[in-house]
Amino acid sequence: MSLRTGAPSKRIVVDAMGGDNAPGEVVAGTITAVREHGVRPILVGHAARIREILAAHEALDEIPVVNAEDVVGMDEGALAGLRRPRSSVAVACRLIRRGHASALVSAGSTGAVVATSRLRLRGQPGVTRPAIAVVLPTRPRPTVLLDAGATADAKPEMLVQFAMLGTAYARILLGTESPRVGLLSIGEEAGKGNKLTRRAHELLTGDVEGVDFAGNVEGSDLLAGKVDVVVTDGFTGNVALKTVEGSVRLVVAEMREAVTASRSAKFGALLQRRRLRLLRDRLDSETYGGGVLLGLNGTVVIAHGASRAPGVAAACVLARDLAESRIVEQIGERIAATRPHRLPRREESR
Amino acid sequence: MSLRTGAPSKRIVVDAMGGDNAPGEVVAGTITAVREHGVRPILVGHAARIREILAAHEALDEIPVVNAEDVVGMDEGALAGLRRPRSSVAVACRLIRRGHASALVSAGSTGAVVATSRLRLRGQPGVTRPAIAVVLPTRPRPTVLLDAGATADAKPEMLVQFAMLGTAYARILLGTESPRVGLLSIGEEAGKGNKLTRRAHELLTGDVEGVDFAGNVEGSDLLAGKVDVVVTDGFTGNVALKTVEGSVRLVVAEMREAVTASRSAKFGALLQRRRLRLLRDRLDSETYGGGVLLGLNGTVVIAHGASRAPGVAAACVLARDLAESRIVEQIGERIAATRPHRLPRREESR
Repeated sequence: MSLRTGAPSKRIVVDAMGGDNAPGEVVAGTITAVREHGVRPILVGHAARIREILAAHEALDEIPVVNAEDVVGMDEGALAGLRRPRSSVAVACRLIRRGHASALVSAGSTGAVVATSRLRLRGQPGVTRPAIAVVLPTRPRPTVLLDAGATADAKPEMLVQFAMLGTAYARILLGTESPRVGLLSIGEEAGKGNKLTRRAHELLTGDVEGVDFAGNVEGSDLLAGKVDVVVTDGFTGNVALKTVEGSVRLVVAEMREAVTASRSAKFGALLQRRRLRLLRDRLDSETYGGGVLLGLNGTVVIAHGASRAPGVAAACVLARDLAESRIVEQIGERIAATRPHRLPRREESR
Repeated sequence: MSLRTGAPSKRIVVDAMGGDNAPGEVVAGTITAVREHGVRPILVGHAARIREILAAHEALDEIPVVNAEDVVGMDEGALAGLRRPRSSVAVACRLIRRGHASALVSAGSTGAVVATSRLRLRGQPGVTRPAIAVVLPTRPRPTVLLDAGATADAKPEMLVQFAMLGTAYARILLGTESPRVGLLSIGEEAGKGNKLTRRAHELLTGDVEGVDFAGNVEGSDLLAGKVDVVVTDGFTGNVALKTVEGSVRLVVAEMREAVTASRSAKFGALLQRRRLRLLRDRLDSETYGGGVLLGLNGTVVIAHGASRAPGVAAACVLARDLAESRIVEQIGERIAATRPHRLPRREESR
């Protein structure tokens, strides 16, 4: 999935203090990203603690460290993010704004990472609110779901912007030529849904430049690969994503119980279990490196809070690929070309 | 699950014209409900057509038929429901209002059934909007999810009412002594969520009479059996319910592919497949007879649109049990006792 060009890339900055297993697993994952994938990172956080871990991995010379005294806890939300100018995420954002780095990776509290990076990186012109894009392992092609939790209260116009962000993401990161966009609702007909989706449906039907709108999709279509991009508000998207996780977990648990219940089933079911594990891995956010916060002046990859080293390494590779594909610039150009005709001006000033 | 008392019960009325397989499968399922479960129904719809099917089953004398010329199509929504005073659902509601029947079963378009019965049965005093309750097969006890799609744009006060409706339903239908209620949101902390859930959380924390509020639950908790009742708006609830269906369908398809891929796995995997089928059946709305529209002056069971005879029969039994447990009256008494202190008056007049 690497999209590297010949040009030397900027560094990506990793929040060493974010996540349930920080800083140990985060630093270890970053080292893996350097050694196995050629990523060029900067680690931000408690410098002394980070250097200790680097030294234990004999990696002190491989990764520069920038100190940040403050840490936002995993149980802290958006407000904590805003109130801590010296937090590792805030310092990391500053490195991006000053041009020292091109993308951020954090496994910290989603609310705090979104709020901090929104404040410090600011929205791209024409994008009112950012959205978290996640990749669902559907067939034949993966599906981009957004927003998975950045903007809980979205306006119809924002869903139109999310459709543009998702289209750019599917095209640039997944190589989908002309991504088809579905609107998550509760019925396929235009009139079905809540106020938000009914109005968004109208706007999207109004021929939005560069968006191939395929109409409404339902919860049962999320994993069916019917469309390439599914657009929804951050509340519904987060509930749907976690419902998928919970459902798969239930089925896997049921299967495991069936296997332990009968010895005769154990042997023959091995193949199925392997397949189930593959499926779970495909659904596991670690595999895809986590969600990507789109719409800001800088790329932010939000890894799962429970990420261990492999998940962090995958997130670093994803951040590098996104930065090198110049996704922020590409989205900017596309939206600038569209804006004068299509996007309602009153939303822009917010 | 039967809650029958000694008193002779009123009839339930079945919309013979609603559903993808109407009227054939609906009439057949109603006959099953009579012969195997002692349900006493009335069939409403095209009388000549219904009598033909009854005759083919030699059941002409077993079930009274009431004629209704008009039929609301499966692809028609709320408006169609409102505009058709002679539709089978409208005629069925009239039978309930006049005291000839106590509950309605329909596998017709959900939007049309909700709109028609809301108009014709009217909300119970103190209930602003109805909610569809579905039973999820969680362990150790089932979980009631509401609203699964009746009220797409809900207000915080309505979610409080849904909590009361769901509590009554879990207690009366499932026999859960003191049901614990969770609010579906995107984070466990009170501050997480969208405007609707943050305000609903405040209201529910304010000690609502008769509701044991356990705080927020997430999408991943839906099938975990953490609480007995999960409250949400009809849009989010419908997306979540259909996402569960889609996820389970995906896993089952993956498993089936694994089995056909290898002959050696076929035999040993039989047990697992049986278990998967059981799980799917548990998740299948046919097993539980469908969703129940709560909050109106009459019980309405909305069976799955694709229901065949067994699903219709299960819905008839559910409707009979609900009517005999006097769930409408019990909810009414409970809300009347609570209302003066707790429910915001401005919502009542809508």
